[in-house]
Amino acid sequence: MDYISEVHKDKVEYRYPITKKLYSKQSDFQKVEVYETKGFGKMLLNDDLVMVTEADEASYHDMITHVPMFTHPNPKRVLVIGGGDGGTAREVLRHSTVESAVMVEIDGAVIEACKEFIPQTASELNNPKLELLIEDGVNYMKMARASGDKFDVIIVDSSEPFGPSTPLFNLDFYKDVYECLSDDGIVVSQGESPFYDETMQKKLLSLVNELFPISLIYNYSNLTYPGGLWSFTFGSKKHHPIKNLDTTRIEQSNLDFEYYNSDIHKGAFALPNFQRKHLQEFLKG
Amino acid sequence: MDYISEVHKDKVEYRYPITKKLYSKQSDFQKVEVYETKGFGKMLLNDDLVMVTEADEASYHDMITHVPMFTHPNPKRVLVIGGGDGGTAREVLRHSTVESAVMVEIDGAVIEACKEFIPQTASELNNPKLELLIEDGVNYMKMARASGDKFDVIIVDSSEPFGPSTPLFNLDFYKDVYECLSDDGIVVSQGESPFYDETMQKKLLSLVNELFPISLIYNYSNLTYPGGLWSFTFGSKKHHPIKNLDTTRIEQSNLDFEYYNSDIHKGAFALPNFQRKHLQEFLKG
Repeated sequence: MDYISEVHKDKVEYRYPITKKLYSKQSDFQKVEVYETKGFGKMLLNDDLVMVTEADEASYHDMITHVPMFTHPNPKRVLVIGGGDGGTAREVLRHSTVESAVMVEIDGAVIEACKEFIPQTASELNNPKLELLIEDGVNYMKMARASGDKFDVIIVDSSEPFGPSTPLFNLDFYKDVYECLSDDGIVVSQGESPFYDETMQKKLLSLVNELFPISLIYNYSNLTYPGGLWSFTFGSKKHHPIKNLDTTRIEQSNLDFEYYNSDIHKGAFALPNFQRKHLQEFLKG
Repeated sequence: MDYISEVHKDKVEYRYPITKKLYSKQSDFQKVEVYETKGFGKMLLNDDLVMVTEADEASYHDMITHVPMFTHPNPKRVLVIGGGDGGTAREVLRHSTVESAVMVEIDGAVIEACKEFIPQTASELNNPKLELLIEDGVNYMKMARASGDKFDVIIVDSSEPFGPSTPLFNLDFYKDVYECLSDDGIVVSQGESPFYDETMQKKLLSLVNELFPISLIYNYSNLTYPGGLWSFTFGSKKHHPIKNLDTTRIEQSNLDFEYYNSDIHKGAFALPNFQRKHLQEFLKG
């Protein structure tokens, strides 16, 4: 085989030419692979689905991280559930407000593969501010709730809503997330495709809407997820991502981004009409 | 062959399963084909490149049309260069301000194919307000300039910058466009992919920038163009697409859109950082 193949709903197949297999392991949870591609650098796949490529990971990690991190005025303690490639933790740790971060990835094979073969995303996994746990995120949240642990921002950087990520798309999990957020905390979650996964988007946003006074969804574009357009759900106890955004914090951060900026932050919440109509009842704030 | 194949810069191949070939003709300009696909309805291809599918044409035609048509406060006379599938003319003619429209498509085979097999886009090609010409758009612009003809909005709905569309990516053509626009006229042009065609984007925007006091680019997402994210360049003599946008005109139009709305209109001009940096010197207004 000299290409990676992904078929989307029997509508279209994406084929990525590859030059080398770098890593392959059947873990307790999924098949984890890393390939060198011809066009997108190194590519991580879980159970044959593209998770990350070096060429376009910046847009995903910028948008899952900096939207909540700049909406919150002072995020000191941050939790990442999933995100085994390390890109989200890497972006979280660029924020000077962060005193400590926890990352909980269920599958040690993903960490192992990315540490060895995709240092571009895994570069900060040994950062002393980061507590990296190989553990079930759902169980972690239960324990954190029981112990009264609190976070300012929680990022649910999950894979698709089947396989090991399935329990991350449930109300019980979000109740624990809610309880573990500080009084002005924010949760952002990987929210699937507006074009291809509208039923799952609706389900996920309905959970956020049930618990949070501000319940929204925002979009960005990448190259390797089907259809290009992709979403993150946004639940917030207090801060609105547009009305309460202090853009001077972005300018004064002195951070340079590949994809993110303050206009993109605000524009991302503008939904195409078909998506807005579909999700209308669960949009709030 | 039971699929359509498109290869993008040797980086990725998109394969669309098809069930039937409906039309195929080698015209004087290009190979024109229509297929019934499994996942995207009918699909038009010119020289093996996907031009239009029934499943996602609405987002393209909404965004190329309604952004200039709602930015201009009273577009009465409109010109479409290219756009042979008819979708852009269809959207133009939904605006009650329009008294007359001209559409100039170089290739009669595209019109013929879409009229017969893609009525979804070609539905208004016989509208009495529309003058439909099978003619070279570059020559048409020259003649229109010589005769002093004026338009409020000109939409350059071209295919890629090679083959029959090549002369549409030149300064001489844009000089004619500029002269044929009324004193507060607007031109919008198909602007390629921010991810894959940054050199062509820069060239096209530099032409707009050389002639117009307001020179911008905006983005939207579809399913079948490579990478999903796609751009339109925007040149305006007077009206700014955000600062001068009267959103009550959108609400009071009573038009319903699949993709477009006033938030999407404004958000579309927020560019990802990599694109903004690349095009910075030609963004104005």
